[in-house]
Amino acid sequence: MTAGGSVMPIGVADGRTRVVIERVTPAVDDGRFPVKRVLGDLVRVEADCLADGHDVVACALLWRRAGAGAWSRTPMQSMGNDRWHAGFTVDALGAWEYTVGAWVDPFLSWRGDFRRRIDPDDVRVAALGGAQLIREAAARAGGGAEAALLEAWADDLAAAAAAGADLAELQRIGLDEARGRIAQNHPDLRHELVHRPGAAEAFPLTVERVLARCSAWYEFFPRSAAGVPGRHGRFADCEAWLPYVQRMGFDVVYFPPIHPIGRARRKGRNNTLDAVPGDVGSPWAVGAAEGGHDAILNELGTLADFRQLLKRAAGHGLEIALDIAFQCSPDHPWVHEHPAWFRQRADGSIQYAENPPKKYQDIYPFDFETPQWRELWEALAGVFEYWVGQGVRIFRVDNPHTKAFPFWEWVIARIRSSHPDVIFLSEAFTRPKVMHRLAKVGFSQSYTYFTWRNTKRELTEYFVELSQGPGRDYFRPNAWPNTPDILPEALQYGGRAVFMSRVVLAATLAANYGLYGPAYELLEHRALRAGGEEYLDSEKFELRVWDRGRADSLADFIGVLNRARRDNPALQADAGLRFLPIDNEQLIAYAKVSEDRSNVIVCIVNLDPHHTQSGWLEVDPAAFGLEPGQAYQMHDLLSGAHFLWSGARNYVSLDPARCPAHVMQLRARMRRENDFDYFL
Amino acid sequence: MTAGGSVMPIGVADGRTRVVIERVTPAVDDGRFPVKRVLGDLVRVEADCLADGHDVVACALLWRRAGAGAWSRTPMQSMGNDRWHAGFTVDALGAWEYTVGAWVDPFLSWRGDFRRRIDPDDVRVAALGGAQLIREAAARAGGGAEAALLEAWADDLAAAAAAGADLAELQRIGLDEARGRIAQNHPDLRHELVHRPGAAEAFPLTVERVLARCSAWYEFFPRSAAGVPGRHGRFADCEAWLPYVQRMGFDVVYFPPIHPIGRARRKGRNNTLDAVPGDVGSPWAVGAAEGGHDAILNELGTLADFRQLLKRAAGHGLEIALDIAFQCSPDHPWVHEHPAWFRQRADGSIQYAENPPKKYQDIYPFDFETPQWRELWEALAGVFEYWVGQGVRIFRVDNPHTKAFPFWEWVIARIRSSHPDVIFLSEAFTRPKVMHRLAKVGFSQSYTYFTWRNTKRELTEYFVELSQGPGRDYFRPNAWPNTPDILPEALQYGGRAVFMSRVVLAATLAANYGLYGPAYELLEHRALRAGGEEYLDSEKFELRVWDRGRADSLADFIGVLNRARRDNPALQADAGLRFLPIDNEQLIAYAKVSEDRSNVIVCIVNLDPHHTQSGWLEVDPAAFGLEPGQAYQMHDLLSGAHFLWSGARNYVSLDPARCPAHVMQLRARMRRENDFDYFL
Repeated sequence: MTAGGSVMPIGVADGRTRVVIERVTPAVDDGRFPVKRVLGDLVRVEADCLADGHDVVACALLWRRAGAGAWSRTPMQSMGNDRWHAGFTVDALGAWEYTVGAWVDPFLSWRGDFRRRIDPDDVRVAALGGAQLIREAAARAGGGAEAALLEAWADDLAAAAAAGADLAELQRIGLDEARGRIAQNHPDLRHELVHRPGAAEAFPLTVERVLARCSAWYEFFPRSAAGVPGRHGRFADCEAWLPYVQRMGFDVVYFPPIHPIGRARRKGRNNTLDAVPGDVGSPWAVGAAEGGHDAILNELGTLADFRQLLKRAAGHGLEIALDIAFQCSPDHPWVHEHPAWFRQRADGSIQYAENPPKKYQDIYPFDFETPQWRELWEALAGVFEYWVGQGVRIFRVDNPHTKAFPFWEWVIARIRSSHPDVIFLSEAFTRPKVMHRLAKVGFSQSYTYFTWRNTKRELTEYFVELSQGPGRDYFRPNAWPNTPDILPEALQYGGRAVFMSRVVLAATLAANYGLYGPAYELLEHRALRAGGEEYLDSEKFELRVWDRGRADSLADFIGVLNRARRDNPALQADAGLRFLPIDNEQLIAYAKVSEDRSNVIVCIVNLDPHHTQSGWLEVDPAAFGLEPGQAYQMHDLLSGAHFLWSGARNYVSLDPARCPAHVMQLRARMRRENDFDYFL
Repeated sequence: MTAGGSVMPIGVADGRTRVVIERVTPAVDDGRFPVKRVLGDLVRVEADCLADGHDVVACALLWRRAGAGAWSRTPMQSMGNDRWHAGFTVDALGAWEYTVGAWVDPFLSWRGDFRRRIDPDDVRVAALGGAQLIREAAARAGGGAEAALLEAWADDLAAAAAAGADLAELQRIGLDEARGRIAQNHPDLRHELVHRPGAAEAFPLTVERVLARCSAWYEFFPRSAAGVPGRHGRFADCEAWLPYVQRMGFDVVYFPPIHPIGRARRKGRNNTLDAVPGDVGSPWAVGAAEGGHDAILNELGTLADFRQLLKRAAGHGLEIALDIAFQCSPDHPWVHEHPAWFRQRADGSIQYAENPPKKYQDIYPFDFETPQWRELWEALAGVFEYWVGQGVRIFRVDNPHTKAFPFWEWVIARIRSSHPDVIFLSEAFTRPKVMHRLAKVGFSQSYTYFTWRNTKRELTEYFVELSQGPGRDYFRPNAWPNTPDILPEALQYGGRAVFMSRVVLAATLAANYGLYGPAYELLEHRALRAGGEEYLDSEKFELRVWDRGRADSLADFIGVLNRARRDNPALQADAGLRFLPIDNEQLIAYAKVSEDRSNVIVCIVNLDPHHTQSGWLEVDPAAFGLEPGQAYQMHDLLSGAHFLWSGARNYVSLDPARCPAHVMQLRARMRRENDFDYFL
């Protein structure tokens, strides 16, 4: 027989490593990107671990903080069909990693066979083999009490075999459970396979603050905070807004850019091309002679004022998020200092933003293909670092989809490496795969298409995808019923009921949501032009005065809604969402269940703002941990009303003139065993 | 602003590489294992390719024989939603590889913008920019006619801009299609990303013979070939069987092991423990004093006889497959020459095969954890190489799931590297993930659970999984209604109709199938014991005499069935299978459609062997390329009957006493455009 060249298969250092590991979950692109979790989460990991033949496989979950030396090891439990699971709890922010180790276990294989032996001669030979394996475990135990115990056990077993003990006696000794567990503490790992995913040494995991998973955002323009016609709002004026926002129950106050605003080609009111004196311009035209992305617009106040506002906000349980818009007005200092960071036109001028035939001549985009890309990246990272240095920990990033993905991956990792508590929200309303890539490269949260999803079918399909699709481990939706750029058609024509239903949908379908106020709670619905989505007299181009005390304000309603979110863990995560059948196309119904299944919320929303709609809702009481025939109370957290339900079908009726939604908490004695399959 | 350490994201050598590539298909475990195709296949590759912003992305499929230097490049076409596709045809056996390259294309981006410009000043500046891009393309063209043409084009465009040409004139010059295509031949690839999958440099692809995708196997015991009671069959006797097997339309004749059979602990008739003189033993107890895996049992003939049989078989259009069973009888020469290749028991004896309390003392398994594993692997590879050297090109491997996966990956790659025409069939009836792993590591075909799938639901679920599940790119099912080890209960009690229906199901549901004859065509149904699946008087332990001329033989029926397979491309691949609704639980119906959709087969099988069953079959005529209302002829390839059908619902009735199945070919004028979505 001829002997040819020896080719080892990929990843096999030793041909005796017989075990294989496949399909480890969770994983994003086979380890190329981190899975996302928040502080305190139990990270459940599953894997297929198998070997040839009948030998027993054992496996362990390996996990650690990124950069830590040794792996922590947790034995994995069999789920049947060669699938295994285990979990670990993440108790610190930042980068973690995990993988799976598996091996063919000689001791467990021996024990499994030994239990099934019936031939007395055969069992004595097997007992001697087992004694040898136990002695090897003792040697691995490396001295101490466990080693001594195992040595003694091996001696017992060998002596009994030599003395001709019978089957029952040998099995009594050899199958001793307590000593067997000690032997299992010292497995033979010579042929352990530690799984290496395709794209990394181990599976990366980013642990963020709980706020990354669940947050309610309130956006307002600080320059409109004065409440007096013609007077430019200041940070000091914003302080007076804090109790108001706190009462509504929001977590985050988000400001449009606070930097100096360009004067060259400044936009006038209602997005006109030529500003007149007194026009304040768009805050997204960042930079002027007095400073760029690390400066504050004089009219808003000083850096000290801003830092004081941050502190006051914290006193009200609020964090302030800044808007980072990486683009420059023609006046921005960088335009003159670093012309190579921008693309040149053939006539030597700097290329303004354009999407022919549209031109945005008040904005210069950066050229991410500049030869000076390293300097540009450093400068942009410096913007985040500057504001982190001032105490900001949340950034809403403007149009990240027009900047290079590798830059975002680099800059977010860099900021997080020193400040793992920083949260990044991606404002990318663009193609689905672009939005997903931004989430993969590190954004904590992402704007969504919720803004334009109105019908039962649209909402159902979209939120099934968001909560159960491949993005569930990295794409955290943040649902907005409006933004300063988007006054959706539904809000223009649907009246108060639509403002109520849309905020209920956002706040209960998504664990992260936000709105642009006070336009929202004050029912602002006037569009610049019919068929468009621009607000009339938009704050993007002028100061506004808002009457927060108006009787028709939804502020109290939003406060009740946010209270329901705070009180119910089911509303604080996205994974527990399941839609429920209801026999009326204008009614949408869904349940949210907390991870431990102890908290169940059922929402029903009337999507028709003009008519009362009724229907029969179907629920599976067993899926909520209820006994068959058990009655259960549904407590509407919006109205305070109570309903006594039983069985699978219950009647619901919603009058949009009063309130177009139920957000109902299930109150009943529930089975606590994990024997119902809601999450399967 | 501070400047921290620079961390480049994985896989990014240059921050200016803005494009990303994701979700390339086909791929097995992100490139860890090869995708499988056969000679002549068009390999269709898809990928998500996208970049930030509005610039135009272009991409190419890169493919080559493994080890070849340069990539061949095929431009990919957009499918919308950032997905792209292209294909290449594999025209040689062996290892290939492919990947995807993508880049942001400045010329295409410029042209897209240029087409939409409306401002005459603006368009002149843009024309100058375009001229510059065209000059760069000319430089990349590296001299010659295309370079000159592009230079002239750039001059034209720049001159027209300088001369103040109007919008229409500049667009006429700048958007010239013919010259634009030439510029596209020389794209700017400075920032091209060539995708590297997680687990390899590129996606591996194994190209096998067409027989790997479609084959009909006939297994028989050469030692029963004599046809005379008590006389041991010889290879020369087998020659007389070749016309018979050829008439039945099989492709492959597969023999159980042909090696010397152990004498120590030889099994007697009907698997008794103590053989009596004259008992021939099990061919799977490989090896005796006179030789091992590279020897031939004296009673079968000489090596020269075997080589002559191979040649004669080829003359009948048949190939002979050998059974490779990597285990040794206690008499095998290796037991004495290489005791370290086997596991030792504590009493110093060699460990026989066991699964306590069962013992198989006539067989010694190899120890794949031996320190001499390299020598063992070499010796086992030598077995394949020896028989390849004799002209064998197909191996049925016995119980591969009790040998280490890394060994299979290594040995199959090694054999294929010199003989890419070798086909390996995995005889692993075991857990699903083990069977899949064996297919991933290189087996061409795999035994399946078809043997035990009887009901409509069982068959439907299983074959949907096989034809459309994740294994479709690497797991080629080979369906067997019986084997020498398995006489399924259905065949024991169902009579002739079940023998007919099971072989029709195997031959039409799977492109690869086989049966153990003449037991099958002669309706052998007697089990060793009730409730078991062992044949009575099994050929595994004794010689048998078969009367091939019996009037009730299914040989002619099988011949008609295999003829249908040979004549219809739809039956020669697995991917084109779709089940059809039929309103009778005892009737199962499915269509198979060829890849080019020109060949359509509809099968209906009555699963009830005792009663005529009837029902209404539903088909979607449009899915078969038929016009609405068009009548179509269904030609039953088993009976020769013709049926004129129209519309979606047609009546079917099958009497098991006559024939329990239709295998119908659709005959009609069909639309040839690829505008119906059968495969979507």
